[in-house]
Amino acid sequence: MHMIEELRSLKNQLLFDGSFEHGTFKNIVIAGMGGSGIAGSIFAELYHKHPVCTLSDYSVPAYVDSDTLFIAISYSGNTEETISAYREAEMRGARMVAITSGGELEKMCKSTVKIPSGLQPRSALGYMLSPIVRSMVDDGSTQLKEAASVVKAVDEDTSSLRGIAESMVASERIPIILGYSPYSSVAYRWQTQFNENAKILAFSSSFPELDHNQIVALGKSYGLNKFQFFVFGGSTGRVRDRIQFTLDLAGIEAIEIPMAGKSPVARTMHFVHTGDYISYFAALSRKVEPADVAIIEELKRLLAGI
Amino acid sequence: MHMIEELRSLKNQLLFDGSFEHGTFKNIVIAGMGGSGIAGSIFAELYHKHPVCTLSDYSVPAYVDSDTLFIAISYSGNTEETISAYREAEMRGARMVAITSGGELEKMCKSTVKIPSGLQPRSALGYMLSPIVRSMVDDGSTQLKEAASVVKAVDEDTSSLRGIAESMVASERIPIILGYSPYSSVAYRWQTQFNENAKILAFSSSFPELDHNQIVALGKSYGLNKFQFFVFGGSTGRVRDRIQFTLDLAGIEAIEIPMAGKSPVARTMHFVHTGDYISYFAALSRKVEPADVAIIEELKRLLAGI
Repeated sequence: MHMIEELRSLKNQLLFDGSFEHGTFKNIVIAGMGGSGIAGSIFAELYHKHPVCTLSDYSVPAYVDSDTLFIAISYSGNTEETISAYREAEMRGARMVAITSGGELEKMCKSTVKIPSGLQPRSALGYMLSPIVRSMVDDGSTQLKEAASVVKAVDEDTSSLRGIAESMVASERIPIILGYSPYSSVAYRWQTQFNENAKILAFSSSFPELDHNQIVALGKSYGLNKFQFFVFGGSTGRVRDRIQFTLDLAGIEAIEIPMAGKSPVARTMHFVHTGDYISYFAALSRKVEPADVAIIEELKRLLAGI
Repeated sequence: MHMIEELRSLKNQLLFDGSFEHGTFKNIVIAGMGGSGIAGSIFAELYHKHPVCTLSDYSVPAYVDSDTLFIAISYSGNTEETISAYREAEMRGARMVAITSGGELEKMCKSTVKIPSGLQPRSALGYMLSPIVRSMVDDGSTQLKEAASVVKAVDEDTSSLRGIAESMVASERIPIILGYSPYSSVAYRWQTQFNENAKILAFSSSFPELDHNQIVALGKSYGLNKFQFFVFGGSTGRVRDRIQFTLDLAGIEAIEIPMAGKSPVARTMHFVHTGDYISYFAALSRKVEPADVAIIEELKRLLAGI
């Protein structure tokens, strides 16, 4: 599937009706790397009923036991870090769930939500996130429906997003995304989509934390004109004031990305999808193939000793 | 106190004998921003007996209750986000601990570890971290003693660190620190120290996660020659292979920061202190005052409507 079709499939992915039984538990650990891991990070900002730890490593913390709901997310089902963490968690007696399109993980886990294969992992975020939201968030199905609707609206007019990308690439600026809680993981998603789709460095940070350190550099660093700043709109109260004052004091011009939607899931996915398109158009502007991540495949071969 | 004296005080801060009683609990939430928050993030990478959530925001998650050990860290004791989160957690019946040199927080909390005042918050990391390690980590006091010893060794010969900083500043390169687990929070500490001390932008990421996204940009981005890469040494096994292969495949030259010490706390503080010095020397090279964070004070006045 061409990358543009993958992008346009997000609205339907959010309506995918996969879910899982979770029973009772006292804490949640979600393991996943990169494009799969981001589903866990986004969920952790949406869900607050139990402690949620996201894991992007080979090992699980010592506290993991039969009170833990362990959710392993790997689009391929063969991510070595996630498989390793899965094995450890299973030995500790955790309640195991997997979200995958196949691979080792599907074979290992009795409670697998099987999702469609054939996409780039990072393009399958809707398939990986929606089963968790549907199973764990009150009103999750309703929020996912609204999310599908706001995502569809982004699909219908992308010309301004193309313009933003073309202008940034023409001046070879590196994107810095200034997010705010609970959209810090979306700012990170933008970073990784610029990395993988457009093959450009990108960085993210979030209010209010950045007001305690990065603000100093925003006012006085060298090299500031090499960066393109993005800021997420729709903030309220103290955070809205912080964003306004910070940009004013530092003298930073940032492109504001408007918020859309009413529910947390819809707002999150609207910000996600906007960044997906800008990174895609940045790839086209650079004349690089958005789907190509050959260096990751080369790395896997080296690690496998091939 | 001059910044260089603040840096040299770290070894004694690690021997500060503050601690707290924590009783029984099922999860830990540590609230803190910027230079105070980093103590919580470092602790979360050292401690795995219970779920630890670090919070850099105004509100606490819904799960916080009488099973939660809530640790508020604010050097001044007046950080608005931390005070706000403290109030919420107290109303939920959490077991409350504060680490502060004074301010509102000292007045609010019956179980305060009072630490010496008069430093920049970011220079007081040893005072903020050591009570948590001493109280919560097996063998914590022994590890802190070793940490004081490796930190002292860094103090004794800083000429190579000065050279690294001078060379980076002379070519106006922006630092990118490539950490690895369990030193991801230290890579972030470097980033914030470059921001506040040297007033330059800086960014951090960590292995193995970065091999799933940033690696693509490391191989093909524009603007790569504007950055100075640092990588933490001392990794083993799969992560060591990943670091080597990633730098080779992407063609990135990185300055390797050697590991020192045997215990996790000592290794962590050695990496921390090395970065503290490089950011300090970067400030001197730029002829900016390392202690000056006037823009943060201006922001606080604007937020207070003064």
